[in-house]
Amino acid sequence: MNQAEAAEPVLSHLDESGHIRMVDVSSKAATQRTAIAEGRVRMSAQAYRLLTARENGKGEVLNTANVAGVMAAKRCAELIPLCHSLPLSFAGIEFSLDEAGHAVTIRATCRSDYKTGVEMEAMTACSVAALTIYDMCKAADKGIVIETVRLAYKSGGKSGEWRSSN
Amino acid sequence: MNQAEAAEPVLSHLDESGHIRMVDVSSKAATQRTAIAEGRVRMSAQAYRLLTARENGKGEVLNTANVAGVMAAKRCAELIPLCHSLPLSFAGIEFSLDEAGHAVTIRATCRSDYKTGVEMEAMTACSVAALTIYDMCKAADKGIVIETVRLAYKSGGKSGEWRSSN
Amino acid sequence: MNQAEAAEPVLSHLDESGHIRMVDVSSKAATQRTAIAEGRVRMSAQAYRLLTARENGKGEVLNTANVAGVMAAKRCAELIPLCHSLPLSFAGIEFSLDEAGHAVTIRATCRSDYKTGVEMEAMTACSVAALTIYDMCKAADKGIVIETVRLAYKSGGKSGEWRSSN
Amino acid sequence: MNQAEAAEPVLSHLDESGHIRMVDVSSKAATQRTAIAEGRVRMSAQAYRLLTARENGKGEVLNTANVAGVMAAKRCAELIPLCHSLPLSFAGIEFSLDEAGHAVTIRATCRSDYKTGVEMEAMTACSVAALTIYDMCKAADKGIVIETVRLAYKSGGKSGEWRSSN
Amino acid sequence: MNQAEAAEPVLSHLDESGHIRMVDVSSKAATQRTAIAEGRVRMSAQAYRLLTARENGKGEVLNTANVAGVMAAKRCAELIPLCHSLPLSFAGIEFSLDEAGHAVTIRATCRSDYKTGVEMEAMTACSVAALTIYDMCKAADKGIVIETVRLAYKSGGKSGEWRSSN
Amino acid sequence: MNQAEAAEPVLSHLDESGHIRMVDVSSKAATQRTAIAEGRVRMSAQAYRLLTARENGKGEVLNTANVAGVMAAKRCAELIPLCHSLPLSFAGIEFSLDEAGHAVTIRATCRSDYKTGVEMEAMTACSVAALTIYDMCKAADKGIVIETVRLAYKSGGKSGEWRSSN
Repeated sequence: MNQAEAAEPVLSHLDESGHIRMVDVSSKAATQRTAIAEGRVRMSAQAYRLLTARENGKGEVLNTANVAGVMAAKRCAELIPLCHSLPLSFAGIEFSLDEAGHAVTIRATCRSDYKTGVEMEAMTACSVAALTIYDMCKAADKGIVIETVRLAYKSGGKSGEWRSSN
Repeated sequence: MNQAEAAEPVLSHLDESGHIRMVDVSSKAATQRTAIAEGRVRMSAQAYRLLTARENGKGEVLNTANVAGVMAAKRCAELIPLCHSLPLSFAGIEFSLDEAGHAVTIRATCRSDYKTGVEMEAMTACSVAALTIYDMCKAADKGIVIETVRLAYKSGGKSGEWRSSN
Repeated sequence: MNQAEAAEPVLSHLDESGHIRMVDVSSKAATQRTAIAEGRVRMSAQAYRLLTARENGKGEVLNTANVAGVMAAKRCAELIPLCHSLPLSFAGIEFSLDEAGHAVTIRATCRSDYKTGVEMEAMTACSVAALTIYDMCKAADKGIVIETVRLAYKSGGKSGEWRSSN
Repeated sequence: MNQAEAAEPVLSHLDESGHIRMVDVSSKAATQRTAIAEGRVRMSAQAYRLLTARENGKGEVLNTANVAGVMAAKRCAELIPLCHSLPLSFAGIEFSLDEAGHAVTIRATCRSDYKTGVEMEAMTACSVAALTIYDMCKAADKGIVIETVRLAYKSGGKSGEWRSSN
Repeated sequence: MNQAEAAEPVLSHLDESGHIRMVDVSSKAATQRTAIAEGRVRMSAQAYRLLTARENGKGEVLNTANVAGVMAAKRCAELIPLCHSLPLSFAGIEFSLDEAGHAVTIRATCRSDYKTGVEMEAMTACSVAALTIYDMCKAADKGIVIETVRLAYKSGGKSGEWRSSN
Repeated sequence: MNQAEAAEPVLSHLDESGHIRMVDVSSKAATQRTAIAEGRVRMSAQAYRLLTARENGKGEVLNTANVAGVMAAKRCAELIPLCHSLPLSFAGIEFSLDEAGHAVTIRATCRSDYKTGVEMEAMTACSVAALTIYDMCKAADKGIVIETVRLAYKSGGKSGEWRSSN
């Protein structure tokens, strides 16, 4: 998925006649790939207080979101049509709390030793962890917003290292 | 999932001892439920130009994201741990383009005649459609951001109609 | 899925602007639905002889195809993008052998008490049973052909009973 | 799956006592594998006209079938009991239209660098793409027939290249 | 699945000719069904000490097993070939600790308002929760044993209430 | 998953702060891995007699359990949260009958050439085969017990060969 580094970017999932296609990675070498995605779930003061007030509660909610995100990373290729199925060597999720902003920040890291990047696995893990937090807190605030799921970092493959400028 | 309308909101997925639990909907009546979620995928001018320049390309990318979102709605309960599995009577996705903002706006609608709401189905459909657009345009811009996936509307069930104030 | 019975058939999965959509069955009544699909797997004389010579072998191959077909019926909505997920009240597969034609004939029956037909469940069960027979006999004949998977019968819903004229 | 090349073909998925078994590929070397399967969906003149009359419609229906087929290729091992799960390096689908025969021809290509062939992945992709076309056109013609899904080509592995004689 | 209460029990999943079949529940009425399954995971003193020594650790391990069990209950029909897919109104798991026996006891409860029992959903939830505990403690003791997964209770349907005599 | 061989065993799925994590196998070498799990399903004399009296019946029930177990082995990473997804080179199940004890003994063998062990795949295959036997015989005896699912053998990886002392 690194062919965009050429002079003129293209949508690598469209062929010459404009039809979708999976990228053929037959001739690519397997290298160690890492991708990190970040997201943020912002809620009302009240929902945030409920989430964090009960020490045990917070642990269970975030652990459940953690499990959901890791499991989604492993099933990414079932959800994203043109994504390659691949064996992940690692999928992990970390949360941090933003008291002032009533928000949970999610950081999902995926690794593989395969022919294609794992950006989608990390983005999917991050999104599903965020959706799970929404699900578990929505009784207290239906207006919770999943903000800014984005790629933060990637390494490996022909295009090498990339870091979000945000 | 409507028990939050009481005086003091609680996290309905935690029991008295702070452990997670699925909400028991055995005694709930089936009513017609609708939920609409909205999301937005913002990209670089160049990626947006590529996505929209080739009439055919845009159709294929957005149709692929549409299919991915609808299929994810149907599998929501596999991804979100405490979500009930239920038969959807409808899942649909609409896209609109924001030329000025280089963004695609996604609107996912789900319906069911069942005992529990379909907010998570709509939120999941929206997120997976957004992830699919990211996947298909990331060769042109790795920094694409999935912004503000949120619930826009819900109706049905004990808590009745709700509309996002945003 | 019965709106085609009107004067002019349309593709029910396309909306007015030509975009795909799932049919909204919110306002449909649940009725008892049945669908039967038929398929045929034709192979070389040698492969057919191997399949049927060992009594035990034949039982195991056909039972495995039976199990695969039934399991696929239950997962049809995961495979066919615009198909509704629904609870099946029955999925069953019968095989018959055509000695002269070196063929196995497959008959898949599905039933549901729901708002939409189960044609796709029966067609999918039939196809996956056929693919499983192919898989298990392909070592003896790579040229095995899955012939004529088609709907044989359906009942229930607004369009009532239908029978293949073939 | 190449043990059939010996003097006397056998059903490789049956052990000595006639019980089914997955082929053990532990000692096989990974080589580049390709498989191509072909299928054909024949419908009434009216259904074919509806499918092809509206330029946009045809694109959406075939793109949806394309997505469904590619996603099914990746999940083949979940459907076919004795099939190995493996990472595909490519799965792609092409359609061509037969005006005279009111038919859509499907060609599914899969590739992997693994220890076992990808015939089943290609056959499954082809079948699910065909089922999706059936689903989307059945409102106009319930009698649509999925004809002759078969292997057209394979290469790689001990048995090398094979081409259908049909 | 209650037809066994007659004079002579039969295997309800075999038809007259001895072939497997799903039970046809088309003509059954939907009633409220409950099933409770129990299991026990016994480990070495050392593994048990590690599991329970770190308060936080125990919470995370058991919560992860809880999530895995609930998710498996929802997917039971994908795993057990002749099991009906159905919407669960509840799936929940409770753990208790047996200090003297170095064991974790698992109790899985499932409920549905449908035409068939939910014994398999409860049994599957219990087994997968047990497997998850095994997975997370196996670094400390490969010899952990999953003991006595069994049905403890069921109610609903024609056969009414049943309670294990053990 | 072999880091437990050190002086002091730890729960490898918990990080320093007590949160769950998948083991990172990025730097591990792929070796040939084998794991064998064993289980036992004990039932009433009557159920056992029904299962074994009809030769054909027994074959179909055990073959169905065989298929279910093999398919579950391939999907283990979808069920067990922190398990790596990996390509299996073999998954197989053998049954033996214990007339005196009215029991079926299950032996599941899995193999992979990958960076992590396949204990969980074998344990999951064994459990799902046992659950399937329960499902198919429960009409004759709801009190059937799944006894002692355990690891019997493993080889490969840093920790080498291990054999159950039971």
